[in-house]
Amino acid sequence: MRRRELLKGAVLAGALAALPRGVTQGAPQNRPVLGRRYRNLIVFVYDGFSWEDYAIAQAYSRRRLGRTLHLEKLLARYPNGQINTHSLTSYVTESSAAGNAFSCGVKTVNGGLAIHADGTPLKPIFAAAKEVGKAVGLVTTTTVTHATPASFVVSNPDRNAEARIAEQYLEFGAEVYLGGGNRFFQARSRPDGKDLYEAFSQKGYGVVRSAEELARSNASRIIGIFSESHLPYEIDRRFQGVGVPSLKEMVQAALPRLAAYRQGFVLQVEAGRIDHANHINDPGATLWDVLAADETLELLTTFVDQHPDTLLLVVSDHATGPGVLYGAGRSYLESSIGLDLLAAQRASLEWMRRVLGERPEADQVREAYRALKGVALEEAEVQMVIEALTRKVYRPDAVRYGIQPDNTLSWAMVQRNPSRPDRPNIGFGSGQHTASPVMLLLYGQGLRGLSLGLLDNTQVFGLMGEALGLRYQNPTMSEEEALELLKARPQGVLHPSEVWA
Amino acid sequence: MRRRELLKGAVLAGALAALPRGVTQGAPQNRPVLGRRYRNLIVFVYDGFSWEDYAIAQAYSRRRLGRTLHLEKLLARYPNGQINTHSLTSYVTESSAAGNAFSCGVKTVNGGLAIHADGTPLKPIFAAAKEVGKAVGLVTTTTVTHATPASFVVSNPDRNAEARIAEQYLEFGAEVYLGGGNRFFQARSRPDGKDLYEAFSQKGYGVVRSAEELARSNASRIIGIFSESHLPYEIDRRFQGVGVPSLKEMVQAALPRLAAYRQGFVLQVEAGRIDHANHINDPGATLWDVLAADETLELLTTFVDQHPDTLLLVVSDHATGPGVLYGAGRSYLESSIGLDLLAAQRASLEWMRRVLGERPEADQVREAYRALKGVALEEAEVQMVIEALTRKVYRPDAVRYGIQPDNTLSWAMVQRNPSRPDRPNIGFGSGQHTASPVMLLLYGQGLRGLSLGLLDNTQVFGLMGEALGLRYQNPTMSEEEALELLKARPQGVLHPSEVWA
Repeated sequence: MRRRELLKGAVLAGALAALPRGVTQGAPQNRPVLGRRYRNLIVFVYDGFSWEDYAIAQAYSRRRLGRTLHLEKLLARYPNGQINTHSLTSYVTESSAAGNAFSCGVKTVNGGLAIHADGTPLKPIFAAAKEVGKAVGLVTTTTVTHATPASFVVSNPDRNAEARIAEQYLEFGAEVYLGGGNRFFQARSRPDGKDLYEAFSQKGYGVVRSAEELARSNASRIIGIFSESHLPYEIDRRFQGVGVPSLKEMVQAALPRLAAYRQGFVLQVEAGRIDHANHINDPGATLWDVLAADETLELLTTFVDQHPDTLLLVVSDHATGPGVLYGAGRSYLESSIGLDLLAAQRASLEWMRRVLGERPEADQVREAYRALKGVALEEAEVQMVIEALTRKVYRPDAVRYGIQPDNTLSWAMVQRNPSRPDRPNIGFGSGQHTASPVMLLLYGQGLRGLSLGLLDNTQVFGLMGEALGLRYQNPTMSEEEALELLKARPQGVLHPSEVWA
Repeated sequence: MRRRELLKGAVLAGALAALPRGVTQGAPQNRPVLGRRYRNLIVFVYDGFSWEDYAIAQAYSRRRLGRTLHLEKLLARYPNGQINTHSLTSYVTESSAAGNAFSCGVKTVNGGLAIHADGTPLKPIFAAAKEVGKAVGLVTTTTVTHATPASFVVSNPDRNAEARIAEQYLEFGAEVYLGGGNRFFQARSRPDGKDLYEAFSQKGYGVVRSAEELARSNASRIIGIFSESHLPYEIDRRFQGVGVPSLKEMVQAALPRLAAYRQGFVLQVEAGRIDHANHINDPGATLWDVLAADETLELLTTFVDQHPDTLLLVVSDHATGPGVLYGAGRSYLESSIGLDLLAAQRASLEWMRRVLGERPEADQVREAYRALKGVALEEAEVQMVIEALTRKVYRPDAVRYGIQPDNTLSWAMVQRNPSRPDRPNIGFGSGQHTASPVMLLLYGQGLRGLSLGLLDNTQVFGLMGEALGLRYQNPTMSEEEALELLKARPQGVLHPSEVWA
């Protein structure tokens, strides 16, 4: 990369140079300006959240819970718009390139954290915030070392190198790390055998491993890791009684700690498993993770109301799936039944697969769907599930759906009644991320009259930088240069089960 | 309906009373105000247009056509937001209830035009505009009597009663009617044997039946009907040389006629077949109808620039499908291939079905997919197409997809290569409308600083009314009352092929 050359004219030309072919011909860019600074910044990322997910949660909340989604209230009253999400060389992003666009303000190739494809590191905004004395927090329902939180603090060519990213977190030294991913921290499962908990402890962190320990801890700097990998889906936490803290409880633990720092703080909160639920085409799991995010959103807006020097930025990084509530019955008059049927769902497909194991009997399958999904499977569907679990016989268009066998478990319960659905009438376009623009919303004081419209995801960086008074430009890379670098990379055929970005 | 009682407190309570259960508990309503009036109003409806459709067209335009979508420029620079689309009793609307929300400002039951389920007629805004002397125009790519245009001018309990609606158009007397639907106008195919062309002619309309006649006509009031049913998809018009005017050409004919009226005009333009292309899961057809809409949009904004006393309101009525460009390949790096592959598509599935007839040979099928869709089918896929056409053997989850056999023709060419797609990697969640919020955009003078956010579709009525200086309130109906009325209606089982709303 000709970094010097790029940096020269970077502020104006940079953003354009990074956009795909064609877009330089008059690509429109409105440049919203906050017009003020904030002491604290909270970025709340809904990972893999589409407008279709929004519609289902909004409707379920109205119809089944008798209340208005907190997000709906904000979308009606506070500045919001959308962002385009494409990465440097792909119209469909994955979460690290999307995270980089937010945290570094430039387009990158899918797969690396705060880094270009040639290894040029980028400075993520939370690192810049730390340099000026802000406290830093990361709270997520995924592994705490997952792409979205990691892209805000460290550089790494491989977003999947989570054992290394855990060490980078130790070096980085944020004040709060809360999420999943025990296997990347404990000596027994780390490739290098290091005990990172011990290392964090020696650096003065309170180390907690359960909701109870989190509630009891007085530590001002804290790392809390509550599961082997990702935290369980909210639907499983809530209805199957898995004993981990909710996203809201983690944020409740983070906020007073961060608010104690005189220079202010930056916090990323991620509702990270909306994405995963959509990957496996599990609308009940998606719904409850969105509702858990909404509960958290309410807590965050209350905090902002009490700490008016705080900007809350709510954003999705891309759509996944998406799962759509589609019209059913004559004149679509039976459409809302899909929402009612979701109320019978009491576990995720991930949970159900664990319950069924690898060699389930037909009766077990039938009973699991009845008890956990509220659906009476037909005999052929029961066999479909058994074959998916025992012999890896997947749905015929598996390439589109990816994560197996969960997607086949989802397909087994597809709506079959044309006049009145007896299963949720929610269909999925894929089991992958999509190209759709997604939500951006701002909440805080002094935003009246701000109009967002359609932005590029890299502009989130500018909004955050203005909020914090941090102005710098990371080096850009052209699409042509990136495509040249990608030619040298191994391609290889992927089994659908490996695709989960 | 206790109409008097409802009308009493209608202005404030009305809108809330019409929303589904639960929403009255603190439903948020921002109320954007234009703050000025306009002489002319143009409403441009993208029927069945989702944000996923937008993303695909935006990306295709950048990557394959080397230009920025006109809509992208507007979304970046002019006030835009989204609307919720649910109808009175269903979280998934069809086009007449969506049209009524725009034209009448109240929620109605799916299926009727400017009317409540008990037969109470509503006054659509173009009828009110006509009363104060505005000229009226309807231009669409569907039958001109289809739900979206019809809901702006006439009341009818059945949106499908298009032969009757054609007569209502004669009585209503708009200045411009351009679209499809010959079978509802010519004596031979009308149930009552009336020659409506003759009737329009006697009322002083210029009657035109081809692009050439449209270009030659000097009539100030005009009806142009260019096909038996809907106009062909843009992809067929453009690449298969079907001799009908494009949407842009129809609008070009409408504008000078309407602009000649001293009291100003109201015009609805509908890109009506985006919806149909999504119903049949045909992303090439969707793409080109969106691009044709974009060309029309550019023409309309030029008109507004030259006639600054005009407000242009661009809106989608609901999402259909939707078709999503989904991630493909390692780290999704092969995702954009789906766009490149769309360039090989040269006809719609509707066209292909006509080419293949009801008893195609395997070679014909293979050649049609190669020549018209740029796809080499495998033998099993060829058989799938033949069975769909000859024996009505449809894809296994046909209920979700509806319009058959087109959706099976689409399914036959689904992407099957996990590492590098050789078919468009565009998947459909359904063949039906969905619950997602959709686009609303305003273009015109004096809109700076206007912030839209998330609105209800009924609020479009308020914006149009303010623009035209027309303020009135149609009677509302409660969801409970509507559900009671629906109980008395026949339910009946629908074959998937009948569902197309």
